[in-house]
Amino acid sequence: MDSLRTFSVRRFGAAGSERVMDQVAAEEPLAIVVRHWQKDLQISANLAITMRTPGYDKELAVGLMLSEGVIHAPADVVELRALGNEPSNEILVDLAPGVDFEAWRLARNGFVSSSCGVCGKRSREAVQQDLPPVKTGAFQISSAVIHNLPDSLRSRQPAFAETGGLHAAALVNTTGSVEIAFEDIGRHNALDKLLGWALLNGKVPLHDHLIFMSSRGSFELVQKIAMAGAPVLATVGSPSSLAIETARDLQITLVGFVRNSRFNVYSAEWRIN
Amino acid sequence: MDSLRTFSVRRFGAAGSERVMDQVAAEEPLAIVVRHWQKDLQISANLAITMRTPGYDKELAVGLMLSEGVIHAPADVVELRALGNEPSNEILVDLAPGVDFEAWRLARNGFVSSSCGVCGKRSREAVQQDLPPVKTGAFQISSAVIHNLPDSLRSRQPAFAETGGLHAAALVNTTGSVEIAFEDIGRHNALDKLLGWALLNGKVPLHDHLIFMSSRGSFELVQKIAMAGAPVLATVGSPSSLAIETARDLQITLVGFVRNSRFNVYSAEWRIN
Repeated sequence: MDSLRTFSVRRFGAAGSERVMDQVAAEEPLAIVVRHWQKDLQISANLAITMRTPGYDKELAVGLMLSEGVIHAPADVVELRALGNEPSNEILVDLAPGVDFEAWRLARNGFVSSSCGVCGKRSREAVQQDLPPVKTGAFQISSAVIHNLPDSLRSRQPAFAETGGLHAAALVNTTGSVEIAFEDIGRHNALDKLLGWALLNGKVPLHDHLIFMSSRGSFELVQKIAMAGAPVLATVGSPSSLAIETARDLQITLVGFVRNSRFNVYSAEWRIN
Repeated sequence: MDSLRTFSVRRFGAAGSERVMDQVAAEEPLAIVVRHWQKDLQISANLAITMRTPGYDKELAVGLMLSEGVIHAPADVVELRALGNEPSNEILVDLAPGVDFEAWRLARNGFVSSSCGVCGKRSREAVQQDLPPVKTGAFQISSAVIHNLPDSLRSRQPAFAETGGLHAAALVNTTGSVEIAFEDIGRHNALDKLLGWALLNGKVPLHDHLIFMSSRGSFELVQKIAMAGAPVLATVGSPSSLAIETARDLQITLVGFVRNSRFNVYSAEWRIN
């Protein structure tokens, strides 16, 4: 299925570890290019890049433009087609002459969203460049510390217990101590709060720390911890395909499904001892 | 606690419903304003709006700028302060003269992110304007249909079963039938695919449908279904404070925690019979 990718991973349980094949959700960037009319001139513009699971890209592009207020009716779209070779990560939306794309764009000018680590990047290669290499030094962490992460985090996450609606990011040292944890409705925000705290306190680059998160492991999270120099990201939820591929490229140790006395290691497993 | 809000809700169980107080995660926009130097001139620019849980806004702003590559060291930030009265939803980041903000911005120009429904809006009032009123017509749905939603969706969500990593959005009619469902690693994408499909198939506005999602209920999701004219959003996870407030303003019926034969109704409960 297009929406799944298979990876060889190391699965740790209470009794040790074994190599298994694991299916994860596919994640790839989709660039949405809009062709619109300004008086008699047809102009192409980049509308957005979104990290998405491939499939139904036309519906995604049209639905995004509906919910963002760019278009309002089927007739606003003249043509929809993938650009380049299939499978394509770029789609062209041809707008009808009556659609005032410029007015929409002017109203939104000058912002990027923090929800997205890839605003302004055109392709997967572009999003993956400019990341600093993670120090391939001596940092290692024991499987016992990882097994214990959910309990350590739970004691530091009071609001989550009340609502079930907050994500947490925790900064953990080699002995398994949580140095600090932040909560937010957005997983990217929770991690940004942690990284901001670390920078303001002179702890960046975070070469000797693990970051543990209550969420899934997305590409953006891997990118953020790479920017801060942290060598290990562990999450309660599942990783995406692009998170795994990026972690392998950068030699970041990506750990997923940390719960119920088990976890999977998707990359750079030599840091787990 | 700053990160929680309390609402009066109607809780439905197997035996009927009762009015209870419920705590949910706080969600508010944070506008990050950057003051930077261009030669001898000091310039203010809007960096981003992010939907976040209030608290540790300084850490959030600095962490976002670190992970986006705007800053790299504590000395890059000269001053950090909230703008306007507390509690403030706007923060000013004063950059040191050496930080080349223009170069960073040029590299990212012209994009918005689909992860965020509020790119380009400056405040909560701004994000909430321009939403079409939802038809307060005859559409109603029975509690039995809502109790049955998780089973209906599960049978339509094969990839989720494999990975645990995909969100689903389903279009449901008054009898509880799932007309179509889409999966994606991002909840916003899953909903955008659904809305795009609906628009391309001449079904927008979706006055006679409920939308059911496997995720939490964020403000952006409420905004998206409002743009498509759908009167009811039901989610497996918890709603945010701003999702509830927006749904109440728009008279959209927001249902959360749909699982284990119970659910909570946060707004416009007259549509549930």
